[in-house]
Amino acid sequence: MVSTIVIALGGNAILQADQKGSFQDQMENITRIATQIAQLVRAGHRIVLTHGNGPQVGSLLIQQDEASDHVPAQPLDVLGAMSQGQIGYMLQQALGNSLFPDGVPVVTLITQQIVDPDDEAFDHPTKPVGPFYTAREARRLSVLKGWPMEHIAPHRERGYRRVVPSPRPLRSVEAPAVATLIASGAVVIASGGGGIPVRERDGRLEGIEAVIDKDLSAQQLAEQAGADVLMLMTDIERVKVHYGTDREEDIVSMSIDEARLYMAEGHFPEGTMGPKVSASISFVERSGGVAVISSIETICEAFEGITGTRITK
Amino acid sequence: MVSTIVIALGGNAILQADQKGSFQDQMENITRIATQIAQLVRAGHRIVLTHGNGPQVGSLLIQQDEASDHVPAQPLDVLGAMSQGQIGYMLQQALGNSLFPDGVPVVTLITQQIVDPDDEAFDHPTKPVGPFYTAREARRLSVLKGWPMEHIAPHRERGYRRVVPSPRPLRSVEAPAVATLIASGAVVIASGGGGIPVRERDGRLEGIEAVIDKDLSAQQLAEQAGADVLMLMTDIERVKVHYGTDREEDIVSMSIDEARLYMAEGHFPEGTMGPKVSASISFVERSGGVAVISSIETICEAFEGITGTRITK
Repeated sequence: MVSTIVIALGGNAILQADQKGSFQDQMENITRIATQIAQLVRAGHRIVLTHGNGPQVGSLLIQQDEASDHVPAQPLDVLGAMSQGQIGYMLQQALGNSLFPDGVPVVTLITQQIVDPDDEAFDHPTKPVGPFYTAREARRLSVLKGWPMEHIAPHRERGYRRVVPSPRPLRSVEAPAVATLIASGAVVIASGGGGIPVRERDGRLEGIEAVIDKDLSAQQLAEQAGADVLMLMTDIERVKVHYGTDREEDIVSMSIDEARLYMAEGHFPEGTMGPKVSASISFVERSGGVAVISSIETICEAFEGITGTRITK
Repeated sequence: MVSTIVIALGGNAILQADQKGSFQDQMENITRIATQIAQLVRAGHRIVLTHGNGPQVGSLLIQQDEASDHVPAQPLDVLGAMSQGQIGYMLQQALGNSLFPDGVPVVTLITQQIVDPDDEAFDHPTKPVGPFYTAREARRLSVLKGWPMEHIAPHRERGYRRVVPSPRPLRSVEAPAVATLIASGAVVIASGGGGIPVRERDGRLEGIEAVIDKDLSAQQLAEQAGADVLMLMTDIERVKVHYGTDREEDIVSMSIDEARLYMAEGHFPEGTMGPKVSASISFVERSGGVAVISSIETICEAFEGITGTRITK
């Protein structure tokens, strides 16, 4: 059976924690992913790819900082757009190469995500972005630019970072174009970094400085694009209960009711597995499709059910 | 009559010579352009937009330079992709806002342009990119990175710059997706900065450090997309003969034979009007369409023939 699959690639798909971000490192990681995704494309599935952008936007923020005497800094929404271009280009080239000589078009769409300007996230910025600063620099930036600065675990000793709001995505502006392109047989890369956050005011869009969770954004896009399967790829093969204890156990599959129960019991930490399970529950409940959480190393096996955690109705 | 129009926006459409590149300045310029293009969209025409990226890539190169101790520099093809994301985002948001409440989708595609690796441009890099360096810094970079560095008129007194090749575009990789999207009723932004230059080797694409002329690239895309009209927008309303002399005269229209004659007589300088007239001749000859050269301030008037220079068979 041919499926429409939205695949969200975790940040480690493009840049691993011990890598600094050279083009070669990123392209090697991406090529490994592309080889797997090419198999799903060859099997006839319609694919939409989305990805994180934390390290890439972090690098741009450091570069803006260092050159701020000569070059005007761009706002965070513009940096998000730049990172969509950067990562999209690498993914589309690598995947196109993996698909040779089949000639399947692979394209990247710059993608905006509408958020609610009244989202309570705007009252409590939580998402750290950019470099670490000393207490003195943090106070200066806080006064100069109005940035909320915080000391954030687990890197308290490294200093302060700017924090921005992480509002929920309401709607992908470019979802209709994504649908047109996948219907034409193209593989589409969209909603990179969770999408560029924008608010709507009297019908006009305006960028805002925030970061949208890329798994929630993938779920949103999957629903709008009528996907059958939502795959959230991270660094572990299966979701676990009692994680880090001697009762730790892999979850092979769970219903959305079971998933909600585990969630309420606190099995899925807020910063890691929580948003993935939450996005999976919403997708399965609202679309009737299947969600899969697994590792970026086992995309095909997870799709086939050989590994990964499946969340179904 | 409804036309498919490829519009190439000169660098000054997004950033004027006396502006430093703040988001506000760029967005104001872009909004002025968007208002004009919205009129053509409302009249029912199918529009593909393309644009320059010199100042934006220049800013990224300076930022990379300043932060090179902390953050790995990305190659020029990746910076081109970033600038397509950045400028595409601003254009698609501004044009979408100008089109409210009509709801015409406006999308940006990250676009690669295939060039010939044997293009003689690779033997003679001519296109300056990035910051000016002192003679000492230029020698250091030339040894360290293998960059050809040159003292280039008209800014000799400011120092040396890196020069890169400017090969001819052979084919836009993403032209089929552009055609799919415009057929679906979307306005498409593509081939920004002349497209990301790539070479093909055994069917695999690979980015190269070069800059493709955006007018030649627009011509290439216009032919592949089956456009009726190619509009090259710059800072003057009409092409001139005997420019800068007391015999200076506006050209209202010319055939491609006349254009070739003027070209041979040296009326169109290599660095400014030459590539525009040359791109126009190729487009008109190969597609049978019409080319228009005019100012970014008079897009609609030029389309209607009230101003601008028309090049026809």
